[in-house]
Amino acid sequence: MSVPGFVASGVACGIKESGDPDLALVATADGRPVPAAAVFTSNLAPAAPVQVSRAHLAATGGYASAVVINSGNANAATGATGREQAERTCELVAEGLGCQPEEVLVCSTGLIGIPLPFGALVSGIGPLVAARAAGGYAAAARAMMTTDAGPKDVLHVGGGFVVSGIAKGAAMLAPNMATMLAILTTDAEATPAALHAALLAAVSGSFNELSVDGCTSTNDTVIALAGGSAGPRPGLDGLMADVCTELATLMADGAEGATKRARIRVIGAESADDARRAARKVAESQLVQCSLYGADPYWGRIVSELGSSGAAFDPDRVSISYGGVEVCRAGVALAHDQAAAAAAIGAREVEITADLGLGAGTAVITFTDLSPEYIAENMRTS
Amino acid sequence: MSVPGFVASGVACGIKESGDPDLALVATADGRPVPAAAVFTSNLAPAAPVQVSRAHLAATGGYASAVVINSGNANAATGATGREQAERTCELVAEGLGCQPEEVLVCSTGLIGIPLPFGALVSGIGPLVAARAAGGYAAAARAMMTTDAGPKDVLHVGGGFVVSGIAKGAAMLAPNMATMLAILTTDAEATPAALHAALLAAVSGSFNELSVDGCTSTNDTVIALAGGSAGPRPGLDGLMADVCTELATLMADGAEGATKRARIRVIGAESADDARRAARKVAESQLVQCSLYGADPYWGRIVSELGSSGAAFDPDRVSISYGGVEVCRAGVALAHDQAAAAAAIGAREVEITADLGLGAGTAVITFTDLSPEYIAENMRTS
Repeated sequence: MSVPGFVASGVACGIKESGDPDLALVATADGRPVPAAAVFTSNLAPAAPVQVSRAHLAATGGYASAVVINSGNANAATGATGREQAERTCELVAEGLGCQPEEVLVCSTGLIGIPLPFGALVSGIGPLVAARAAGGYAAAARAMMTTDAGPKDVLHVGGGFVVSGIAKGAAMLAPNMATMLAILTTDAEATPAALHAALLAAVSGSFNELSVDGCTSTNDTVIALAGGSAGPRPGLDGLMADVCTELATLMADGAEGATKRARIRVIGAESADDARRAARKVAESQLVQCSLYGADPYWGRIVSELGSSGAAFDPDRVSISYGGVEVCRAGVALAHDQAAAAAAIGAREVEITADLGLGAGTAVITFTDLSPEYIAENMRTS
Repeated sequence: MSVPGFVASGVACGIKESGDPDLALVATADGRPVPAAAVFTSNLAPAAPVQVSRAHLAATGGYASAVVINSGNANAATGATGREQAERTCELVAEGLGCQPEEVLVCSTGLIGIPLPFGALVSGIGPLVAARAAGGYAAAARAMMTTDAGPKDVLHVGGGFVVSGIAKGAAMLAPNMATMLAILTTDAEATPAALHAALLAAVSGSFNELSVDGCTSTNDTVIALAGGSAGPRPGLDGLMADVCTELATLMADGAEGATKRARIRVIGAESADDARRAARKVAESQLVQCSLYGADPYWGRIVSELGSSGAAFDPDRVSISYGGVEVCRAGVALAHDQAAAAAAIGAREVEITADLGLGAGTAVITFTDLSPEYIAENMRTS
């Protein structure tokens, strides 16, 4: 797949000891800056590349020519040296592309607190820039991976324009945002402000409705670049949202150790904020995640999480359903088709609805089960 | 062990299908009410026994003759029927002891959302009351157990008085409070108000500094009864705190699937609230818990959790130590004795210190690792 006006590439530069690809580039074909927007982690320990990319976007007023991404090291908790290396990375890419350093954005993903293997990264920039091509998105998506089960590389086609998204993300996935990187490119035309608004809306309805383990990483970044050759397109917002939703679903499906994907939909909350708070508490509950892994329709744990979520709650009004099977009504067990409830929670994709019976607030969070494989993947970094 | 002025007992009444003991009693020896205080769950879906015990303590102005506890069923999410059954349980115990129903407090622990096997419970009350004896604490502690590895039954001796504590708690352990029940009895004399103040302080420094999985249950209750035969004793507050601390440590050691117990101490926070928020975020992080299980000194995850905890945070000021080994200073990796750091996190009891470098706020949370056994214990309720 390709997006008119953009090129991409991915190479192995030696940051990863495995020799797997670990350096990626997405850039405008001519090296000229185009409208750009980004959403960054809310973590107060943002990685060096997050600090640098934020500053670059502010300096250009929302324009960029390229995004360079390394995997295998987060360049986080690396202090002034880390920031200098992120800046130098942008300078070297800018020299290769013939643009200004401030027109390059940078992302990193991998382990936190370990100095960046900067010599390896520098050695890869020449080959990376040389390899850029219209068909390079797949290679870029692959070079962004850490523990991802596979590359995440999608393209949606609208009326006369396209939106592409490549992403990584497999754990530390929580709203605001996941530990995740995503780069969107489109040939539609948009001002930096319009692109930013569209990106915020798309992230809000996708990555921010996803939680794997409640952890919000130091490096989360979503960047959108609008090349403009297709002209202004009213459908851009919707297509960006579709791309983000598909990428978020791919992340949940490929999450570390996950055997199931679930959606908790909270309705009837006193407010939308309450609904989000309640849905997130359920989604991030280790006990609910264990029940999901065991395909056990133990709705009592869901009631307990709702009651301790901080949302307004009346235990005599809540009802809970698995799939379409209501198992709790007015706060107590409801006689129901047990085989149907077991089938609903035994499925690969599980739908849970909690109606708080208090108001009109609704929210949805997608999450995954907690399996022994998650622990196995996360117990050692080396 | 025994406490002058009190009796206890534990029997099997058939709530648990296993036939294990499931009904416990702690009462004054003469059935007369004594000063009593309690701390209950903050969950907005409190179980029926929590609602009933709260009402009884309010009605008596802080006096009670007895506490009856069943395990094997939480009597939570059971609506009006559950409340009636909790009230009726108190009436039957009161008849047996010759006190008023309002002078009996009631606790339940077990699965949520399943109707109480009330016939079984009623059949057990006669034998339970008949079996009460000064030496009955061990039997009572055993009958409170759910998935606990063993009974929790401690006695501390002060100058001329004693404080006893029996407890259960193995999962859903989070501050404010754990899924836990604890009954303290002392022969010291105290007014209901003084006893309540002492209990709040003791709980704050023990159970509320413990987190196994961030889940706050529907049934959490800590009750203290002061018989008074030993007269007023200035050391009562301290001894109650000691008993609660020992019970909390027993809970962490016996937590479901735990192979390690850790303490995260946050110092240098802008405020005590910030310190608590930061310590709790680290303690409840699945990723930190996985690192602990794997004995991996991956401090980057701790920085990331501190940065997303909501506490004021400056990534360039934080330092992290395992045991006495500082591994991160001013936000970046510090050269250190790697064997010593590995030994510190490889121990059965792990001490982690995070200095935020911002102020004087401190807090400590005790937590456990996340192991495959935790998942195995929680994936199915039947």
